[in-house]
Formats: sequence, C-alpha cells, structure tokens
Amino acid sequence: MTASPRVVFIGAGPGAADLITLRGARHLAAAEVVLHDALTDPALRAMAPQARWVDVGKRGFCASTAQARIDALLVRFARTQCHVVRLKGGDPSVFGRLEEELQALAAAGIACEVVPGITAASAAAADTLRPLTRRGSGRSVSLSTAMTADLGMQAARHADTEVYYMAGRQLGLLGRRLLGAGWPQDTPVCVVSHAGWPDMLASSHALNGLAEAAMQHAGRPTVVTVGAGARAVTGGARSSAQTVAPMRRAAFQGIAAT
Amino acid sequence: MTASPRVVFIGAGPGAADLITLRGARHLAAAEVVLHDALTDPALRAMAPQARWVDVGKRGFCASTAQARIDALLVRFARTQCHVVRLKGGDPSVFGRLEEELQALAAAGIACEVVPGITAASAAAADTLRPLTRRGSGRSVSLSTAMTADLGMQAARHADTEVYYMAGRQLGLLGRRLLGAGWPQDTPVCVVSHAGWPDMLASSHALNGLAEAAMQHAGRPTVVTVGAGARAVTGGARSSAQTVAPMRRAAFQGIAAT
Repeated sequence: MTASPRVVFIGAGPGAADLITLRGARHLAAAEVVLHDALTDPALRAMAPQARWVDVGKRGFCASTAQARIDALLVRFARTQCHVVRLKGGDPSVFGRLEEELQALAAAGIACEVVPGITAASAAAADTLRPLTRRGSGRSVSLSTAMTADLGMQAARHADTEVYYMAGRQLGLLGRRLLGAGWPQDTPVCVVSHAGWPDMLASSHALNGLAEAAMQHAGRPTVVTVGAGARAVTGGARSSAQTVAPMRRAAFQGIAAT
Repeated sequence: MTASPRVVFIGAGPGAADLITLRGARHLAAAEVVLHDALTDPALRAMAPQARWVDVGKRGFCASTAQARIDALLVRFARTQCHVVRLKGGDPSVFGRLEEELQALAAAGIACEVVPGITAASAAAADTLRPLTRRGSGRSVSLSTAMTADLGMQAARHADTEVYYMAGRQLGLLGRRLLGAGWPQDTPVCVVSHAGWPDMLASSHALNGLAEAAMQHAGRPTVVTVGAGARAVTGGARSSAQTVAPMRRAAFQGIAAT
C-alpha cells in the first residue's frame, strides 16, 4: 500500500476555529481540497487558503442521497489529488457519520487517517465549568442522540451523566422522556448552545423546567447535560450554597438559572 | 470580577503533543507556571519554555493527600502569578479530577477557565478507524471506569458502545464482568494502549478472548471499547468480509486480531 491516495478526516471541534488540534491544523495547511460541513467556523479557511473548499454540508435529518454524493466526491478527489481533507465539526467518531465515508473509501481501496476532535459534550463542560465526571457521584458518562431513526424520541437513565446531542428542537419532549425514564423532577440539567463559540449560551434548569430552555436556545446547535455532570461546582464547605465557581466572562454572562 | 488571578485548565489530549488544541497551545505560550501530570508528552514543554514547570503527577489510585497538595499549590500560584496553567492529559472534564480543583479555586475566589481536550476514547477511535457511533447499531456511547471506589470492578451493557478507561490492569476480570452484564461472547472488543501516541498499539478480540490482550498492553495506559464501536469498518457489499479499512501506518502495524 502506498501512502497516497488517501483522505485525512479532521475533527474541527464544535465551535471556534481555535478548538482544532495542532495535528488537524497541520494537515489542513497541506490540503489541496477540503470537503467541509456547513457548521464549520469560516475562520478555519485561513488555515488552508491554498486549498479548494467544497461545502458538502447537509442540515437536519440524514438524506441518503446527500451522503452518497459526499462518498462519491471523496473517492473522486482522493483519486486525483494528493492531500484531501474531510473536515467535520466536533469529533468525527462521535455522531459524525464517519462510518459511511470510511466504508466508501475502504471499498475504493483508499487509505484514511482520522484526526480526533473536541466533541460538543467536552466543550459544553469546559464552557460551564461543569465536569462530566464527579468524585463519587459521576463515574459514567453517556453520549447519545435523543432522536431515534423513525424521528421518535427516547431517553434513558443508565449513566450518572447523560449528554444529548442535537436536542435543541424538542426540549420539552426530552424532559418528559427523561422523567419517564426515572430521573427525579429536581435533577439538574444544563443546556448549552454554541458550545465552544464566543457566543456560547448556557442555562441551568431542574428537569421539570427543561421546556423553558427552548426559547433561549432556539435555532442553535444544543447539547443537554443531565445528572451529576450538570451540577454547578461550588466552593464546598467553605462557601455558601449560593456560591458558584467563577466562570470566564462568556460563560458567566450566558449562564442563567431558571 | 477582575481578569486575574485566574487559572486556565488545559486538556492536552491523551497522547502526542500535537493533539492539544490551538487554544490550549496559545494559553500555554503565555503561562508563567504550568502544573502538570506525569503522563504529559515532554514535547509540550517546548510550547512554554518561559514557564516554570511543576510536576504534580500522581499515578494509580486517588491519594487524597496528593490532591490536597495540588489544590493548595494551585491557589498559591494563582495568588502570586498572573498566568497559571493546570495541564491535564486527555479532557479535564472526563476522568480528570477537575471538580476537586475547581472547588478549591472557587472556595478561594479565584476565577477559572477550562480549555477542553481530546479524550482517550476519541483518540482510540481515530487511531483504529472505528467510529464510536454507527448508523443504526451505535446510537449511544458510554464512557466509564471499570474500577469502583472500593477497588472492585463493575461493567454494564447500557450503551451500544461502552468505553472503559484505565482498564489495562485487569482485562480478564473486565471480560468476565462484561459477560456477566449480558454481552454475548462474540461481542467485538478493541483494546488500545497509548492512544494518540506514535507507538499506539491496538488489538481486536472477541469478548471471551479479552484476557489475551493483557500481555500485549501491559504497563501502558489503555482504553477498552466494547460493542458497536469496536467493529472494524469494512468496504461493505462491494468487498469481502476479510477486507478491513486501510489504516495509517501506525494503526495498521499495531492492530492484531487474536
């Protein structure tokens, strides 16, 4: 097997361009062609001004024809260019539809490399200073989508912290499903939209008030963290229950307890 | 609230220095003091040659005295220096003991910022070209540690893909616990040590053969992926069942089906 043709998948992270890794930026700087999704920060273009940028983004629910077109483009470019980058938001391995594109390239005998990216759950936790794992109470984290393949919705109570991706559209229904799965009404929930962006917005809720977050985050990519990892970190015994951890300005301004 | 004193927590990612984000590297370049753990790639030092580097790493099980010492050092440096960085492997929000340190700083009234990092599960998935989520069969991912607080071990079958961190020491026991949790004997398992490093090693197993991985990965930080996300991606209908996705050289050499 020769080193080329090959395709490098790069996770750009969920937000601002500076959440890409150094490894990702290095590959981007060598790219001849970049196939990218709609949500990618335009500032990433400055990292590969020499490349041809091809927007293959598709919003909303999976359209198999759109995926087939992306697969075909990847194969075509890989056969005619040396440095093909497939740039995806977040981490390609987490809700990035990476499998389909790897399959298409494997079938065509084209080698691949994947550069991991920051996934939205990590960015939301960082922005809100709310670690996904906690000593004693938060030993497991589940990442899932609330929407099922038939456009229904399901929710669970398996992990100490549950994070739902792409959950912004139906927060009220998600809240009811979570109550139905056995989470107590006062379970802490943290809703973060545009995680990793300068205009990140975060709001804190009890589970039975989750529906109220819908207006605040309308139309913005949203992750919802439920359970142990949604609790604000306080100064412990030495401070009052009111004290929350100081946050960087964007987070501090954006957070709103409702 | 003034901009300083403050502490910036940075996730360095799980492996080689180039898995840090651009944002993390920028903060590192401005640091006066860097408190870091033992596992961090020494090459990160070149990103902050001006800083005083203080090794606060502790290996193995949690030692509360060691944590208290780190907390006290963080507060002391934050009060005497403008740019204090706390550098952690992986993502600080995922099994990074971030909560304890945020609590100590909140109690001292010191502002914080967290820069997310690549978590080991993402790096392992990238290195092995095995996405954690899959169309249809892999809708949820669980990240957990197999070791419990009392040094027992537990395992579950809640998510389509389960990833266990820090699981290298007792792979045989983990396999038995997973069987006990209801995973079939032939469930695919992928074991990756030194994810994100040039000497990454990956091996594929059926669940009932997981114990055989112990020798290969002995003494190396290891993540274990179980279920949908552990399956190799193949070229689908157009290729034989034997075909695996082409891998970058390190992954291709390291992967060993047993």
